[in-house]
Amino acid sequence: MSVLTRPILDINLNNIVKNYELLQRIAPKSIAAAVVKDDAYGLGAVKVAEKLYNDAGCRCFFVAHGIEGERIRPVVGESQIFVLQGIGEDSLESFEKAGLTPVIASPEQFEFWKKHKINGIKPAIQIETGLNRLGFREKDIARLSEKDKQEFDVVLSHLACGDEKDHFMNEHQLLRFEELKNKYFPKHKASLSASDGTFLGERFQKDIVRLGAAMYGINTAPYRENQMLPCITVKAPVLEIADLDKGEFVGYSVTYRAASNRKIAIVSIGYGDGIPRSLSNVGKVFFAEGNIVHEARIIGRISMDNVICDVTDVKDAKVGDLAVVIGDFYTLDDIGRDAGTISYEVLSRLGKNTRFIRNYIG
Amino acid sequence: MSVLTRPILDINLNNIVKNYELLQRIAPKSIAAAVVKDDAYGLGAVKVAEKLYNDAGCRCFFVAHGIEGERIRPVVGESQIFVLQGIGEDSLESFEKAGLTPVIASPEQFEFWKKHKINGIKPAIQIETGLNRLGFREKDIARLSEKDKQEFDVVLSHLACGDEKDHFMNEHQLLRFEELKNKYFPKHKASLSASDGTFLGERFQKDIVRLGAAMYGINTAPYRENQMLPCITVKAPVLEIADLDKGEFVGYSVTYRAASNRKIAIVSIGYGDGIPRSLSNVGKVFFAEGNIVHEARIIGRISMDNVICDVTDVKDAKVGDLAVVIGDFYTLDDIGRDAGTISYEVLSRLGKNTRFIRNYIG
Repeated sequence: MSVLTRPILDINLNNIVKNYELLQRIAPKSIAAAVVKDDAYGLGAVKVAEKLYNDAGCRCFFVAHGIEGERIRPVVGESQIFVLQGIGEDSLESFEKAGLTPVIASPEQFEFWKKHKINGIKPAIQIETGLNRLGFREKDIARLSEKDKQEFDVVLSHLACGDEKDHFMNEHQLLRFEELKNKYFPKHKASLSASDGTFLGERFQKDIVRLGAAMYGINTAPYRENQMLPCITVKAPVLEIADLDKGEFVGYSVTYRAASNRKIAIVSIGYGDGIPRSLSNVGKVFFAEGNIVHEARIIGRISMDNVICDVTDVKDAKVGDLAVVIGDFYTLDDIGRDAGTISYEVLSRLGKNTRFIRNYIG
Repeated sequence: MSVLTRPILDINLNNIVKNYELLQRIAPKSIAAAVVKDDAYGLGAVKVAEKLYNDAGCRCFFVAHGIEGERIRPVVGESQIFVLQGIGEDSLESFEKAGLTPVIASPEQFEFWKKHKINGIKPAIQIETGLNRLGFREKDIARLSEKDKQEFDVVLSHLACGDEKDHFMNEHQLLRFEELKNKYFPKHKASLSASDGTFLGERFQKDIVRLGAAMYGINTAPYRENQMLPCITVKAPVLEIADLDKGEFVGYSVTYRAASNRKIAIVSIGYGDGIPRSLSNVGKVFFAEGNIVHEARIIGRISMDNVICDVTDVKDAKVGDLAVVIGDFYTLDDIGRDAGTISYEVLSRLGKNTRFIRNYIG
């Protein structure tokens, strides 16, 4: 009998490359930039960026913070690295050392940039078109001199509802983006869309598409079946199998009570590994035996290190079995939905944990 | 005007020591063990363990996984390090290298232990008393020979409802623990309680109390005001201040619409840094000016890198200001409640992120 204790995270770099290539084919006229911010959504920015640079020929990357750009610089050659949160006193050193390109989103950041320009770098300007997050509002754009505008190379904005094909905001933001661009930056390169906008068609793709979530296997166009390959699998060993008698409780604050005799498995993964605690009494894990997949409901509260599930109907469940926590038949998107959040947040949490046996494929 | 871009996480190691000492005074007859699993709930197990070893004289630690024990061994001298998830093929090397003490929770793990004993180590046995998580059930204990029982040094169990003073489970589990211990392990050392049980009084404290959450400032006895000192502060810079006109939307999926003209601040922290996305349209951030604290509601969806808040009533809010995301007046426990989870999960997520400017105090 196999005795294991640690959860296992498999990250399929080959599938990330395939997803990148598929997205590039969907936007054939655009530069396909890879978004590797937040440590590549937790999957390891250095590994992911290196793979995309070497195997997919990616030469344009987006991160959120200067420090993230500095970390990937050694593996992406002379690629351009855009930094979405812009440049500041606390990131200046990273920008200088790694030759990063700031995305300037406010007049204050632009003033800072003008004092601390980096040789050979032309920043992007972010403009606000309806998301009401970062970006120059028109009144601030209007105050820029012609010389100021020539400081920039790319004009960038971001969609609020790109994952809803027919949402009125998409057309609204596209028209607003084109209006502002034509008026103030007619000769600049343009970037409007992340993964979700890329699926909205050529009008939304512009010169640079910024590929993040879909590249990692998330369905950013949920109005049709996911075309992306899954990039992660999470499994965790069963530490114990036990009988639960009718009337017994399970877990913290006794939120589950057995209505009949059950068999339970205690699995070695918990919210400390990034499994959302909101899956308590809601989520599932799976036991795969060849082609046969058994579903086991999570019962009771998820704790920091353990998930308890009902294996009454799982034939021959035993200590050492690997429960599939995220897999082809229970995807990140499924988990996001069941946990009351989005797959992006689940992914972002998972990969940063340090107790996984972490395997990179490819 | 100060221009910053990164969020800031301050970790007060001195307060962790003070909390540890306070808890030791509450359980003066017990060994006060420090629980540093899950990378010390995300705060950095090596830093925390080293500080407790040097400044508080702590000589007993608990982790969840062998790999976690191996990581702290260099900073805790000859201290005993218990490993709650037990020992397995994937952790054997850590156990041998670092001289760790497994907590054995199932007959299968015990068989494994007997084959792979480590010189000079006597494991603990975990017994099940009502949580229905890890632990020997009585039928499995009854099968142990006298010699088997003498393999163990400590008998351990865990409360399900220790944070609810008058919950019937507390007394139920205490009596069950004492019954099983007296029957099978009368001479062994006993450990029943984590932080929450420690507050339930001497009967629950036994030989070893396992101090985790309360040591990190969480209120594990929420039926009275928190006695613990806060151990973390999270701040993040305002990247942009903008006007929001009546009728305008904010954020992904346009979940917020302004009913009047507002002023908003875009703050450089998001769920990619561990701020729960479920605080969208619910949580708050704060702006402190000396003793005056202004509250700013989070509006719209929290995104990976940004939180947007309403600063209409925050006097003189400007780019570069630091928004307090977690502080003395909006604690981890407040965030846990507002996010629909518990402070433990919030803390566990936060500290593992790699974009913080991280300052250790003490």
